[in-house]
This record gives sequence, C-alpha cells and structure tokens, in this order.
Amino acid sequence: MYQPLTASVFEWPTRVYWEDTDAGGIVFYANYLKFFERARTEWLRSLGLGQQTLRDATGGMFVVTDVQLKYHRPARLDDLLCVTAQVTEWGRASLLLQQQAWLPTREGTSDGQVNSVGRHLLCEGTVRIGWVDATRMRPARLPATVLNALGTPLASLS
Amino acid sequence: MYQPLTASVFEWPTRVYWEDTDAGGIVFYANYLKFFERARTEWLRSLGLGQQTLRDATGGMFVVTDVQLKYHRPARLDDLLCVTAQVTEWGRASLLLQQQAWLPTREGTSDGQVNSVGRHLLCEGTVRIGWVDATRMRPARLPATVLNALGTPLASLS
Amino acid sequence: MYQPLTASVFEWPTRVYWEDTDAGGIVFYANYLKFFERARTEWLRSLGLGQQTLRDATGGMFVVTDVQLKYHRPARLDDLLCVTAQVTEWGRASLLLQQQAWLPTREGTSDGQVNSVGRHLLCEGTVRIGWVDATRMRPARLPATVLNALGTPLASLS
Amino acid sequence: MYQPLTASVFEWPTRVYWEDTDAGGIVFYANYLKFFERARTEWLRSLGLGQQTLRDATGGMFVVTDVQLKYHRPARLDDLLCVTAQVTEWGRASLLLQQQAWLPTREGTSDGQVNSVGRHLLCEGTVRIGWVDATRMRPARLPATVLNALGTPLASLS
Repeated sequence: MYQPLTASVFEWPTRVYWEDTDAGGIVFYANYLKFFERARTEWLRSLGLGQQTLRDATGGMFVVTDVQLKYHRPARLDDLLCVTAQVTEWGRASLLLQQQAWLPTREGTSDGQVNSVGRHLLCEGTVRIGWVDATRMRPARLPATVLNALGTPLASLS
Repeated sequence: MYQPLTASVFEWPTRVYWEDTDAGGIVFYANYLKFFERARTEWLRSLGLGQQTLRDATGGMFVVTDVQLKYHRPARLDDLLCVTAQVTEWGRASLLLQQQAWLPTREGTSDGQVNSVGRHLLCEGTVRIGWVDATRMRPARLPATVLNALGTPLASLS
Repeated sequence: MYQPLTASVFEWPTRVYWEDTDAGGIVFYANYLKFFERARTEWLRSLGLGQQTLRDATGGMFVVTDVQLKYHRPARLDDLLCVTAQVTEWGRASLLLQQQAWLPTREGTSDGQVNSVGRHLLCEGTVRIGWVDATRMRPARLPATVLNALGTPLASLS
Repeated sequence: MYQPLTASVFEWPTRVYWEDTDAGGIVFYANYLKFFERARTEWLRSLGLGQQTLRDATGGMFVVTDVQLKYHRPARLDDLLCVTAQVTEWGRASLLLQQQAWLPTREGTSDGQVNSVGRHLLCEGTVRIGWVDATRMRPARLPATVLNALGTPLASLS
C-alpha cells in the first residue's frame, strides 16, 4: 500500500496524544480535521506564508468551504502519523487540496530483521479553502503575495 | 431560506461556547463534526439506543466511514444552533445521514415588532456510519435491536 | 455524599459525548475546564450578561487567571453531569468562583424501587476570572454594568 | 525573565494552531492542559515508557488527580511554545510535576541586530498524576518498571 510521494506533496508528522482519542480507543473522527489543518498551516509556513501576518497585512484569511473525508483505518494513542497536503486545483479565490493521514509500518521477522517498511492509509480527504475578507467573511480574490508564494499558474495573471 | 422540517428530521439544540470558536472569531471548522455527533447520539438516545449499553450488550459500535461537508456561513460565540439528523439510506452494515446546522434568526422592525422569523443554514453534510466489532474494528451487520429501534425497512429481514 | 445546594449556586447540565472522552474510557482531564466554562457562561447569561455583547459595549472580557482542580471520580460516555458555579470572592478586577461537576445517582432495590437518590462529586475547583481590556490584555476594573448584574457588595462603590 | 533550565527539566516544543485558539484571539485556557499532557507523555516516552505498552503490560495507567494553574500571559496563533515537565515529588502511588509553558522571545535593534534573547512565562502549574488499575480506576502502587525508569529514590525499595 506504500506509495512514494512526489516532491509536490507536503508532509508533516503528527503524534496521537490522549486528547485526540475517544472512549472507542481510537482517534475521534473530527480530529483528523485538526491534523489536516496543522499540515495546511505548516505547508503555508514552508512557503513563507504566516496566517496571522497575512491577516494583519491584507485583512483576509483562509476559511474552509468544503470537506470530503474517507476513514479507512483507525489511529490509536502514540501513533506517529504522516499527514500530507497537496494542491490539486487553483482558482482565483480558492484552492483545492488533497490530504491524507498515513501510519508508517515496520514489520520484522522473528529474528529481529526488518523485512518490510510501508504505510497504511488511515484517512484521506479533499479540502477546499477560500479566501475571505476577515471582517465581513465575504469571498475575495487571493492576494498577489499568496499567489506568488504558491507559485500558481495564475500568479502571473493576478 | 426557512424550510419547514418534516417529522422524520431529528433536531437538537447546541450552544456555541468559547471552546468551539477560534481566533478567526468563528466556530472552528472541525467542531461541526462534534455538533453533528452530539445530534446523532441524541437521535439514537431518542430511539432508546444508548451507545455504551449497545457496546456492552453486542460488542459493537458505530464508526464514521465517510463525511461530506459544506460550510455556508460562520457560527459565532453565543449562537444557539439547531442541529439536525435524518437517515436517508439504510444498509445492512451502515446508515447514511443528512445533517445540518441552522441558526434561527429573528428580525424586528424599528418599533420592536418581530416581522420575520427564519433560519440560516450554516453547515450541512452527509455522514455514513458503519457498525463494527469494537475489538477488531471490522465491519459487521447491524444488530437486530438497532434495526428494530431504527424502524428500518430491513428490520423484518434481519 | 449528597449536599443540598443553596440558592446562590448556579447549576447547568452537561452531557458527556464521544468528543469529551479519551482512550482511557473516561472524560479527558482538560475537558472539565470546558464544562466549567460553559457553566460560567450560562451563569453570566442568567444574569443578563452576554459576553460578546459586553465586549462590544465595553471593550473588555473575562479571562481566567488561576485554576485549582481536584479530580475525585471519572465521568464516562453518556453521563449527564450537573456543573455548578458560585462566586466566593468579589474584587474590583476579578472574581473567585467555586465550581463542581456532579454525577446524579439513583440506586434501586431488587424489586425496582428507588431507595436512594444522590450525587457523586467528580471534579471540583476554584477558578479566578479577571477583567481585561481585550485589545491589550491588561487587567482593568469590572464595568459597573457587570458589578450591578452580579449584585456584588462592591456595586454601590464603583 | 529568562531562566536557564536544569538538566532535570524536560522540554517539548508545541506550536499553537487554529484549533488551540478561541474568539478572544488567544489560546483557550483548557488547552494548556493538553500542552502539559503532551509534554508529560513525551517525557515518559524519553524514559522508555509508552503508556499504551504499560497499560497492556501492567493493566494500569496514570490519571491526573490535582492541578494548579496560573496564567500569566496569553499565547497566540503561530506561537512556538516550549513546554516543560519536572518531577518535584515522588510517592509510591503518585508523582508531582511542575510544568510551564514559555514563549521564546527575540528582540532586535533598529539595524537588525539581535540584542536580547529570552522567554516569557505564559502559564505554569503543578500536576499530580496517580497510578490506577485501569479497569476499576482504583489507586495502585507504581509498578517497578515505572519506578526504575523514573530513577526515583524509591526504586530500590519497591
């Protein structure tokens, strides 16, 4: 099930703590949206985009407008997840991202040798984030600084 | 935008507290999944289905397998939301629910008369919940007690 | 362990949902601070004090400055807690509250008669809330509207 | 305000994400207990103590029995906190920890030179964690494996 990730996929590690689990013994379903948000924030930070700084400078912010999630396997306490973010569509006022939470696996033989390394897909989703005027919460066009940092095909047009 | 809700739509009120909001001044996007879960739990309870009791009796529990969400308008601190749950598909091992979060609105005239009462749709989604063996987390058929309580067309077949 | 509560103790019911529990099968320890905050907010609302309205009108808000908590017994999924709030000290810039989370209990005899009704104390704490200028986060004197609504001995002096 | 930390103080970095903040623009007060729990878990992990492994092996787990918190300054979105944990008392069935959340600061001169590096204390507390039998939630003596890993003065006596 291991799939090599391409250079355009941003990855961010996230540890599962007690706060993330529920009485079912697994990660509460809403919390994958927290993990995905952390990965999006770190992806933006990796491009030089701090959200508080952006808001102070432009008066705008990203909000999520659509989410689709599939839950494949549960995560548990102490799991160290790899959470991804990858832009799959660029628009003038919104972006579509594909995001996944993976659990790296390492299986050994009886004599202690590692005989396979892989990852299980736990949860995957698509998330649309739109740019809004933070005061009125109205959709707005992405600022040039954001488009440029993202390196979108639209940057030159803005 | 007001739509009268039919008898088969379960409604549950939820107040927005500080814990639900984020620094954008609005409800954090993952928290609608908490609100939807509360409404599903109360809907099950209204049918006589306590989840802890069910688990003790059957060894099984519901888990969410798919979610689709659209965010239309933000909720804010102190808002009293109306959250709904309605089954739209029954299967032998899962159910599909439509869920919505509404903000009731009340608009007055300048002399204090109420001249319209309505509700804004804030967030809507579909949620698929499947029944699993709680120990192995494997899909399983819904127990007869659940099917009977739900009054599904499948109950007589189980 | 049942203690009749006096008129000056505000009570607010809170149901334990999946979101509140952790993999230990009990309510996650930080979440009692959510429950206590909900009770404080509803206590303020019962006095006519909406926090968003207050902030818009005065530019100030309450923040918590000190917390002491003792955990006596765990709460579990589906428990319906009674959460209390009672002011025990009034100052010009802060208030001290005592707060508790109780689980009502009902014990029956073998023939179905209820032979005792009581409540177990799950968690208790003291919480100091101070008034701050929301922009600079600096301590400030409680506005007269707040003092009056609270009916404090200090109201006439403000 | 900078205080050099001694070798016996465990430190763990924690980033503030949207999920941690509230509509006041600052970290919600309950969330410091999440940050403190993460630091305790990582401190235990650094000693070779995995909590799920411990529970499987011994049937026991840590629960928090007492908390005292002081909030000094607010944390905000994007802050990278340093969270500490240090044992200050060892007992046969519980441990007392001192924990702090610090915000590193870096102040520059007008010509871009860094002229001070320090840290602000945001929140500090003491947390008592007790060992319980996970099934009955009754206090129990700390297992020898835990005492040995902690290197307590009591280890030789257990």
